[in-house]
Amino acid sequence: MSKNKQFVEKITAMEDDFAQWYTDVVKQAELVDYGLVRGTMIMKPYGFAIWENVRDALDRKIKETGHSNVAFPLFIPESLLEKEKDHVEGFAPEVAWVTHGGDEELAERLAIRPTSEVLFCDYYSKNIHSYRDLPKLYNQWANVVRWEKTTRPFLRSSEFHWQEGHTAHATDEEAAKETDQMLNVYADLAENYLAIPVIKGRKTEMEKFAGAKYTITIECMMHDGKALQAGTSHHFGSGFAEAFDITYLDKDGKSQFVHQTSWGLSTRIMGALIMVHGDNRGLVVPPRIAPTQAMIIPIAQHKEGVLDKAYDLRDKLADIVRIDIDASDKMPGWKFNECEMKGYPVRIEIGPKDIEKNQVVLVRRDTNEKEFVSIDELEVRLPALLEEIQQNLFDKALAHRNEKTTVVKSMDELEKALKENPGFLKAMWCGDEACEEKIKEETQVTSRCIPFEQEKLADTCFCCGKKAKEMVYWARAY
Amino acid sequence: MSKNKQFVEKITAMEDDFAQWYTDVVKQAELVDYGLVRGTMIMKPYGFAIWENVRDALDRKIKETGHSNVAFPLFIPESLLEKEKDHVEGFAPEVAWVTHGGDEELAERLAIRPTSEVLFCDYYSKNIHSYRDLPKLYNQWANVVRWEKTTRPFLRSSEFHWQEGHTAHATDEEAAKETDQMLNVYADLAENYLAIPVIKGRKTEMEKFAGAKYTITIECMMHDGKALQAGTSHHFGSGFAEAFDITYLDKDGKSQFVHQTSWGLSTRIMGALIMVHGDNRGLVVPPRIAPTQAMIIPIAQHKEGVLDKAYDLRDKLADIVRIDIDASDKMPGWKFNECEMKGYPVRIEIGPKDIEKNQVVLVRRDTNEKEFVSIDELEVRLPALLEEIQQNLFDKALAHRNEKTTVVKSMDELEKALKENPGFLKAMWCGDEACEEKIKEETQVTSRCIPFEQEKLADTCFCCGKKAKEMVYWARAY
Repeated sequence: MSKNKQFVEKITAMEDDFAQWYTDVVKQAELVDYGLVRGTMIMKPYGFAIWENVRDALDRKIKETGHSNVAFPLFIPESLLEKEKDHVEGFAPEVAWVTHGGDEELAERLAIRPTSEVLFCDYYSKNIHSYRDLPKLYNQWANVVRWEKTTRPFLRSSEFHWQEGHTAHATDEEAAKETDQMLNVYADLAENYLAIPVIKGRKTEMEKFAGAKYTITIECMMHDGKALQAGTSHHFGSGFAEAFDITYLDKDGKSQFVHQTSWGLSTRIMGALIMVHGDNRGLVVPPRIAPTQAMIIPIAQHKEGVLDKAYDLRDKLADIVRIDIDASDKMPGWKFNECEMKGYPVRIEIGPKDIEKNQVVLVRRDTNEKEFVSIDELEVRLPALLEEIQQNLFDKALAHRNEKTTVVKSMDELEKALKENPGFLKAMWCGDEACEEKIKEETQVTSRCIPFEQEKLADTCFCCGKKAKEMVYWARAY
Repeated sequence: MSKNKQFVEKITAMEDDFAQWYTDVVKQAELVDYGLVRGTMIMKPYGFAIWENVRDALDRKIKETGHSNVAFPLFIPESLLEKEKDHVEGFAPEVAWVTHGGDEELAERLAIRPTSEVLFCDYYSKNIHSYRDLPKLYNQWANVVRWEKTTRPFLRSSEFHWQEGHTAHATDEEAAKETDQMLNVYADLAENYLAIPVIKGRKTEMEKFAGAKYTITIECMMHDGKALQAGTSHHFGSGFAEAFDITYLDKDGKSQFVHQTSWGLSTRIMGALIMVHGDNRGLVVPPRIAPTQAMIIPIAQHKEGVLDKAYDLRDKLADIVRIDIDASDKMPGWKFNECEMKGYPVRIEIGPKDIEKNQVVLVRRDTNEKEFVSIDELEVRLPALLEEIQQNLFDKALAHRNEKTTVVKSMDELEKALKENPGFLKAMWCGDEACEEKIKEETQVTSRCIPFEQEKLADTCFCCGKKAKEMVYWARAY
């Protein structure tokens, strides 16, 4: 049994069955395992290490923009959850309820937080008194539970990990600025760390967060052309403040409602990472968030001097890149397969012939290209190569998104595009929910966002033919 | 109302009412607030920032000793929790139960993890096959829930944050080494970061973890003489492995049970931090974990050049120490009080006269001593002073513990010591649980640990007079 474990099993080709390919990669790259309770997941060491790098990069940005981390409780009393009508309607159907503590039945049921707006609102209502107390800029890293019917690792799990920012401001404008700022933070994380190009825009009324004045989003395209919403930022206006009576005295001594935002990014983005960069050989991790940026594989490691040289190399490079060595007794071929499955950006091969020539072989995970590099030049070449890979992953993803984005001007064109080149659909919309619902029902396509970068593609709505209001990105989505 | 918020309110003197002093410090230093649900807490920005520093220091050590972080689910199916008899008996009375998901009643109740042994055991039983799969060295940072009757912030809360390490090994000896190693990691964290001296030892059978072969612990003394268990490490032997059928094939192809450990350190240590170093002016945070190591207070800041100089100072020192500036319009006296309440290790005063002399005033939080330091020497003096404070806090705490530790040779001596110098009691014990129970019942004193550093204080048990087996530390405890 242990022998078999050295072999990397074959994964389904993404062209044959994309969903199965995803499941295979998640399992073979040792990212997660299924928990015992329906829809829960176990994040394994390698999966968690990637998430830690994403989390740490985002946490730095959240702190740099002036926010403080806090930790609010897991439990929400039922009566508190019910305070904001739209919000409870949106979340109640998927709440897990605690009814007993030890042997005792609780007087009031407790929701396990599906999101924590109401807890922060209750706190703010008690702790904000004056304009001097504003703004409140809080964030927490937390687990939340949503009792979903269909679940998939990272994409939709009953319990997931995320950060949720909750802020309160004196003015609507300031809250709007905050909402924008945090979406830009998410976009920066996605594009510059995860190498995932995003489209920024506003959600339609139908797709916005339950209880929000408006929601803005970053939308990414997966390899199969489907969309994934990777992070959202909500402007609440004073809606929650009115429901929870969160007021402050302004400089003139007048009582005012605060204006609030919330914004969240979750382990879901791990799903995007897999489906944007992965291929039929497995995962591909962008260098900036890769726990292992380069893996050294000694060739003919039983020969004298090979392992010593390989370890020297690792020690020499360890301060410059995140590097590891596979000196196990597996065959190099299996080690190569494992490097590919795990998506390490660079593999470094070193054998007796290389040592003779004072060189190594660098193999890029993204293009599979090989190059011979003098050991003396490695400290310069390796970091540069990692940057090239980072950029190439982004460029490839962007080219792919552009290829799979179609302008459509009628429902016929939409259906044609879905068949021939499924992906993002850019189309003019009248702004009417009836059209949005019709499109969803007939084609399972939903509005992804009203992009900030508008184009005028036509004068009329592609669905009903009435006067068009704005351009919308449409797609089937995860 | 906002005006009042500038004033630091008086706190109860610790000599008058230690419990109230604790509550006052927790509140006034803005560490936590009470959650809505009984016994839950909200960790506020300052409290959480201290915890983050403790967590990050410990996380580094956990990784340096070869462990990987993972994330296991929050939920434990009831049937799984029941698999190990001692374990479920220990934890079932304080479990919070989820019975409904949305509108549906669940087929099986789900426990919210009070600790995660059974989840890791189930995972190991499915994922360990061969000696090649060992050791498994996993850790997770998680929230857990224990439905406690009496709760206090940090010390005993219904939900708390911690790390829990769960490891599996081929041999009993290797598991024993791991158990020791992780207790040493905790001791290092407590002594060298939190400046809290610890006593390392083994728990008695009565006090060990439910399901463990043995538990080892670090015990600290609080300012009031009571003990606090700050971290524990458990050797499970193969008890859980037998209950969960966790076996591996050894090199000879023979099936063997694994040997396991677990070890945890929680937000409880924040309580120790407060009660070891705090005083009647508030919190005292050891420099190595202080989010703000030095706070600059400009004096007569309205005078020309003062604020500019203060900001220059901050910018100059920001790469060397964690430094901040309070340039608010509060009076310096209030700012001083706030520095003291928050326990910043050093306060830096700078006013017009200081600027003239090219100096600042450094005020130590621990001793309240002032020194005048040339601005040119600050980059050397300030870090050195922080180290002196760190060392002094440890020395003071150790001296205090020594003062309040009494050797007792009879129950009478114990009761005398409890009255005259309540603290740790060193006494010989016969090893009989009857004595342990009698002592607990009559005096509310519990065995803290059988210290690794044994002394022979007498030949007979201080309680029953029979032959003594070992020396034990006894104390009233949090």
